[in-house]
Amino acid sequence: MLSIAIDMDETIADPIKKAREWYFRDYGRTFTPEELHGKTLSDVVPPEHRDKIKEYLNTPGFFRDLEIFPNAQEVLKELNKKYKLYIVSAAMEFPASLRDKFDWLQEFFPFLSWRQYCLCGDKSIVQADIMIDDLERNFANFKGKPYLYHGHHNVHVTGYERILNWEDAAKKLL
Amino acid sequence: MLSIAIDMDETIADPIKKAREWYFRDYGRTFTPEELHGKTLSDVVPPEHRDKIKEYLNTPGFFRDLEIFPNAQEVLKELNKKYKLYIVSAAMEFPASLRDKFDWLQEFFPFLSWRQYCLCGDKSIVQADIMIDDLERNFANFKGKPYLYHGHHNVHVTGYERILNWEDAAKKLL
Repeated sequence: MLSIAIDMDETIADPIKKAREWYFRDYGRTFTPEELHGKTLSDVVPPEHRDKIKEYLNTPGFFRDLEIFPNAQEVLKELNKKYKLYIVSAAMEFPASLRDKFDWLQEFFPFLSWRQYCLCGDKSIVQADIMIDDLERNFANFKGKPYLYHGHHNVHVTGYERILNWEDAAKKLL
Repeated sequence: MLSIAIDMDETIADPIKKAREWYFRDYGRTFTPEELHGKTLSDVVPPEHRDKIKEYLNTPGFFRDLEIFPNAQEVLKELNKKYKLYIVSAAMEFPASLRDKFDWLQEFFPFLSWRQYCLCGDKSIVQADIMIDDLERNFANFKGKPYLYHGHHNVHVTGYERILNWEDAAKKLL
């Protein structure tokens, strides 16, 4: 059975939507899809607000109730029957997220076991046959087949097969 | 530079000493080295107390102030110069331990970065050139060179090069 490592943030969970909402709450400013095209949220906020974004991400509870990407639950449930599935998140930059991520996975992906979770600092330690991730840097040391999960911040990244959404993942992998 | 994945519990940190102390506090009973030879603490307590041991391990704070194995700090500091070093702990069974382990590493191994931590459910996802671990099961899917870190519970395990203590690790790896 092939193994598959699936990222959390901006792949199955949506921290950026929540960070944008908090930013709107605090500064009354939102960003259009055009402004975010090819960029991260930290790229588009004024430089003096970048630490504020980090502060959001390290607030206990921030990651506990994130929205799930459309169809992620259903497709992961099926992938879990066909692959040795692991959820791998480079989560250590935000230690307050560790327990939140555990609890979020327990609640929203109850068909996965805690044996399938991996919270690391850097994904260069991960081995699997397939990796689905929205960040090119996570493929740096990866020896399996990478799929870049599409997001506004990675539209200019080339050289990877892309997964547009979880419906697309189902077509490619199920 | 070769990479090296180093386990936490019963390799650099001593949760069993603390669990034995708590068990003595609660039941007034301790165990001799002879009783523990070839066995885990859960093996030697009465079967009805096994859940109590799990309860200790899932108490918030339990992992926060564990004793460090002799010479582990000094030797890891040197290994960190020679290898890409990662601390890898199969920690997910005890989610209350996640933050404690992060904080413990930050305090007692300040020369390591959070980028070098990995808290997982199962080590089959880990790739490295070398792994040091006290549990044979963590080598099951490992493609690098395993070193079994010696402990009373693994004395009957054969087939692996053994590291007796951190002084011995220094001799073998530095």
